[in-house]
Amino acid sequence: MTDFLKHWVDGPAKASIVEFVTRSATDGSDGFIPAADRVAAFDNDGTLWVEQPAPVQAPFLIAKLVELVRARPELAATEPFRSIVQQDQGFLGALARQEPKTVTAFLSGIGLAWEGTTPEAYEEEVRHYLRTNLDERYGRPYTDLVYQPMLELFDFLRAHDYRVYVCSGGGRDFMRAFSEEVLGVPRENVIGTAPEWEYRDGRLVRANALHGTLALGPGKPEHLYARIGRMPVFAAGNGDVDIEMLEVAKFGLVVVHDDAEREYDTTEGAELLLERAGIADWTMVSMKNDWMTVFEKGA
Amino acid sequence: MTDFLKHWVDGPAKASIVEFVTRSATDGSDGFIPAADRVAAFDNDGTLWVEQPAPVQAPFLIAKLVELVRARPELAATEPFRSIVQQDQGFLGALARQEPKTVTAFLSGIGLAWEGTTPEAYEEEVRHYLRTNLDERYGRPYTDLVYQPMLELFDFLRAHDYRVYVCSGGGRDFMRAFSEEVLGVPRENVIGTAPEWEYRDGRLVRANALHGTLALGPGKPEHLYARIGRMPVFAAGNGDVDIEMLEVAKFGLVVVHDDAEREYDTTEGAELLLERAGIADWTMVSMKNDWMTVFEKGA
Repeated sequence: MTDFLKHWVDGPAKASIVEFVTRSATDGSDGFIPAADRVAAFDNDGTLWVEQPAPVQAPFLIAKLVELVRARPELAATEPFRSIVQQDQGFLGALARQEPKTVTAFLSGIGLAWEGTTPEAYEEEVRHYLRTNLDERYGRPYTDLVYQPMLELFDFLRAHDYRVYVCSGGGRDFMRAFSEEVLGVPRENVIGTAPEWEYRDGRLVRANALHGTLALGPGKPEHLYARIGRMPVFAAGNGDVDIEMLEVAKFGLVVVHDDAEREYDTTEGAELLLERAGIADWTMVSMKNDWMTVFEKGA
Repeated sequence: MTDFLKHWVDGPAKASIVEFVTRSATDGSDGFIPAADRVAAFDNDGTLWVEQPAPVQAPFLIAKLVELVRARPELAATEPFRSIVQQDQGFLGALARQEPKTVTAFLSGIGLAWEGTTPEAYEEEVRHYLRTNLDERYGRPYTDLVYQPMLELFDFLRAHDYRVYVCSGGGRDFMRAFSEEVLGVPRENVIGTAPEWEYRDGRLVRANALHGTLALGPGKPEHLYARIGRMPVFAAGNGDVDIEMLEVAKFGLVVVHDDAEREYDTTEGAELLLERAGIADWTMVSMKNDWMTVFEKGA
């Protein structure tokens, strides 16, 4: 069965994963979990693909607001447009740290920008962005920068009858535009911050309102419960906004970004998480020491 | 393959189902649908189990409001409590017809009644209700009154790689308390009107707010898209509140309640649907003529 985790170094992290998952699927074993409860939830940015120097979605969203201000210059005097157009570093920093108040202000602009759009038109914008932009450091499409060991972990979990979900603070519909092709995760297993879509005159259009809470921090268990009706028993994250999701699970996995050479060496946005890890029984995965390969396509 | 539909009479309804589903799963055939798009959505009350003389959930909800007024008599002067306690027939009729305005007023009371409850406590209330109440006409538990032919249809669809969802105007969490055991539908495939659950102090508690829209009429495609990220290609319903869900699907199935002897003979709440059926290309299922057996346990 450990054939599934080919690019994981034989060390304590891999051993801990294999032990938990194997026991959970072995009837009669200490740690057995009924199949119906075998739900695994993964954060996206920084857990499944590169999040530095900014989440993949950020330039896409910011460009949309800039474009909207170009079409409607009167918006430039109002928030969040003013901060975006003027590249206010305080605002952008708080946004990068996913501070809920700033994210909420930002999303009100996003809501306005895509109001009335159809799902097809929105997804075409996402795909166009992913097709026409390269990650600056690697010179490759963002979708090449998925962590190969995590895809192997998906397969390992599925082989033990887990349902694998993505639960991101980022946009649910942004991820759904590529999740099947790039992550092998069906759209319906993608959870994240999302707008309401209204059904009017026989079609769906995007409304300027959130569907539920922000999927950050406590919002992650909230969205997971709303979507699945049970809490994940296996959860994986890499940032402070994943703490609550890790707390509710029986097995918590933390991706530690300590690999300056192949990826990034940073604790930014993970300060509380790493502090909490000292007392929580989480499995810490060192990108540097636990992964033989970082990227699927050998980047 | 038609072995799956054992209690369906060999007639036009069964033939139409078999043809659509078989073609949709046959690569190269006219009508082929890629597996990822094979989503089927079923209304619950009146489509999967008996809805007369009132939806199964109704007495449960009303009893909860009466109990709340007993504990907090000052509520008796306010809506929706006054209408409930005084058994106002206008209000109860509008509620039975699922008129959105009345349902919304009713749900504000429901929200108050369960505010702060945990998922475990709420589900125990549901299970207690289902364990201790019998349907008056049949003298049996409500969960015995599931339509056997529809369970066979679930299996037929799944055998053709469809994912089967329930999408009800009723309470999502009410249904999830028994969907796996009674319908064989995993919790995560149950969609319906739902409250927000807040994650506070390490646990979920129910908030007095809705998660998204009412899952009635246009709310059905809205919830389906939010949950699945695509529209169903197969949809089944029996009431006016299912029209929009049937509209978005390629194949619409309508359960017609024309069986006074074994179930009910009524068009109440389905007037618009039946009118629309004259021009829509829906498959009309006569409970009387198309089903050999109505109930799973031979009731």
